[in-house]
Amino acid sequence: MSRMTILTEAELRKVVKLDLAAVGCVEHAFRALATLPVAMPPILRLDIPEHRGEVDVKTAYIPGVDGFAIKISPGFFDNPKLGLPSLNGMMVLLSARTGLVEALLLDNGYLTDVRTAAAGAVAAKYLSRPDSSVAAVYGAGVQARLQLEALLLVRPIRQARIWARDGAKAEATAADLSRSLGIDVGAVSDPRQAAAEADIIVTTTPSEKPVLMAQWLKSGQHVTAMGSDSEHKNEIDPAVFEKAVYVADSLKQTRRLGELHHAIAAGVVAQEEAFPELGAVIAGTSPGRTSPSDITLADLTGTGVQDTAIATLAHDRANAAKAGTSFES
Amino acid sequence: MSRMTILTEAELRKVVKLDLAAVGCVEHAFRALATLPVAMPPILRLDIPEHRGEVDVKTAYIPGVDGFAIKISPGFFDNPKLGLPSLNGMMVLLSARTGLVEALLLDNGYLTDVRTAAAGAVAAKYLSRPDSSVAAVYGAGVQARLQLEALLLVRPIRQARIWARDGAKAEATAADLSRSLGIDVGAVSDPRQAAAEADIIVTTTPSEKPVLMAQWLKSGQHVTAMGSDSEHKNEIDPAVFEKAVYVADSLKQTRRLGELHHAIAAGVVAQEEAFPELGAVIAGTSPGRTSPSDITLADLTGTGVQDTAIATLAHDRANAAKAGTSFES
Repeated sequence: MSRMTILTEAELRKVVKLDLAAVGCVEHAFRALATLPVAMPPILRLDIPEHRGEVDVKTAYIPGVDGFAIKISPGFFDNPKLGLPSLNGMMVLLSARTGLVEALLLDNGYLTDVRTAAAGAVAAKYLSRPDSSVAAVYGAGVQARLQLEALLLVRPIRQARIWARDGAKAEATAADLSRSLGIDVGAVSDPRQAAAEADIIVTTTPSEKPVLMAQWLKSGQHVTAMGSDSEHKNEIDPAVFEKAVYVADSLKQTRRLGELHHAIAAGVVAQEEAFPELGAVIAGTSPGRTSPSDITLADLTGTGVQDTAIATLAHDRANAAKAGTSFES
Repeated sequence: MSRMTILTEAELRKVVKLDLAAVGCVEHAFRALATLPVAMPPILRLDIPEHRGEVDVKTAYIPGVDGFAIKISPGFFDNPKLGLPSLNGMMVLLSARTGLVEALLLDNGYLTDVRTAAAGAVAAKYLSRPDSSVAAVYGAGVQARLQLEALLLVRPIRQARIWARDGAKAEATAADLSRSLGIDVGAVSDPRQAAAEADIIVTTTPSEKPVLMAQWLKSGQHVTAMGSDSEHKNEIDPAVFEKAVYVADSLKQTRRLGELHHAIAAGVVAQEEAFPELGAVIAGTSPGRTSPSDITLADLTGTGVQDTAIATLAHDRANAAKAGTSFES
């Protein structure tokens, strides 16, 4: 018999917010990835094409952290026709000492949303100019909202522009964010215009061809591309690699799944060319931005260490708040 | 919000037994693996050497089956020092249509035990002589017991011999099985003797060097090796490959994890040599045993289709029995 805690999405939303603690735990996880013998196996991926479904399973063990998460992330893209969300998922938190299940985090993808946005904040904190005050966000979904909110935690953002393929959705998202964040957020119909005015550009789309072109970029800007988590997705013009300082969340992953993958395919970058990882920039062992005029590009595909970090935070907070249902089996 | 059923080990033990239904569902899964476009990605494996821990995650989608399982199997080999079992685990059953979690099967490895033993029965049903009446079992753990029980479902076994490195454990297991199965089960101290008298030999050990030697085998015997589920484990003398008809549960897996892996390493078998899979033998598209004098060898490493099959059976049975706790998140 072993005892575990079951936490619902509502309970998790109460104990984990997109705040500096979440950003801090994800930052710590990236630093560990660069400095400790972290075990992070390749993502397990199952495709069910007849239902336009896919499932990713991610995990990572960080030495010194008591637990490790196994995250199950299904994406079933016909779900909206059934009135269901496309993205779902849950995490299982196991003890790193005994392998026993400690908690079932039935978050329906909420913790992934938070740790993904938190990674955007970490990338901006280490790669954007400290005085960055104007943001451009491509896309108008959940991550568009959260990525902007995350930027506000680490940079003095006073203005943001949203561009999305669906202009009405961009307008609605901009209006909501303007209200909730208390800064000037507007929608623009021209992605080039959004880029031109920004210090930080975050791309959050599921696009399969570039939405951000190299000739739109100007010196000093930082770009975070977080939309691509599979081979066919591509947001960034490969020519950006010719002018930007490139940083990967996990080079092994971005060579296969990220923007780097497409730059290699386009012949702009050599297959085995070395690039810094975000964790090494945090740890100070790789330079990242070296001057206010650099253009920097962070390529975020999502890593198991982020899941382990946020799941551990959620479990600790839930324990402290005595939240959740105890279950024995 | 989505609604799922949580089933404890005790509840699962009530609704799923090692019986002909369990054997039938695993047989169906192997047939599907050979005849349908099953999706079964490589096993995700995480190692935590400082706590002698390892975790396997397996999954498979079988077209036509409503759900698919994601199974988490931790093995932490210092647990007995803490009074805990080494092996644990659970399964998550998701809808193949929507990706929503339908059930959490908190089985602590019970369903794996059943589906693994059921695969032994399927192998014997298709590869051993129909008149097989004497069994030898190497090992004295949970699978030694269950594999013998499984054989009785498909062959007229009237006598069995148990050999294990720990002779006292072999005696105890033999005495228990003799009582519970109502047949003549005895322990032997010489593994060669156990092999000499048997029609069917099942190896269930975690051995890292061969426990069954080629020169001990005689014509007409069937061997099921189910102990190896990772690179370093090896129960069968590679020379057995020179005299036996070899059948894999999944050739992709046995080339990497199974007995085949060691025969290739020993130079007895070429890296890309083709062999039949159990599903093809079931479907009749590969021969398997062609004469009563053949020696047959089934190499079972454990497959995700078995997990999906047993999880689906468990969920259906639990629904019918209205077992489990309904949970919403």
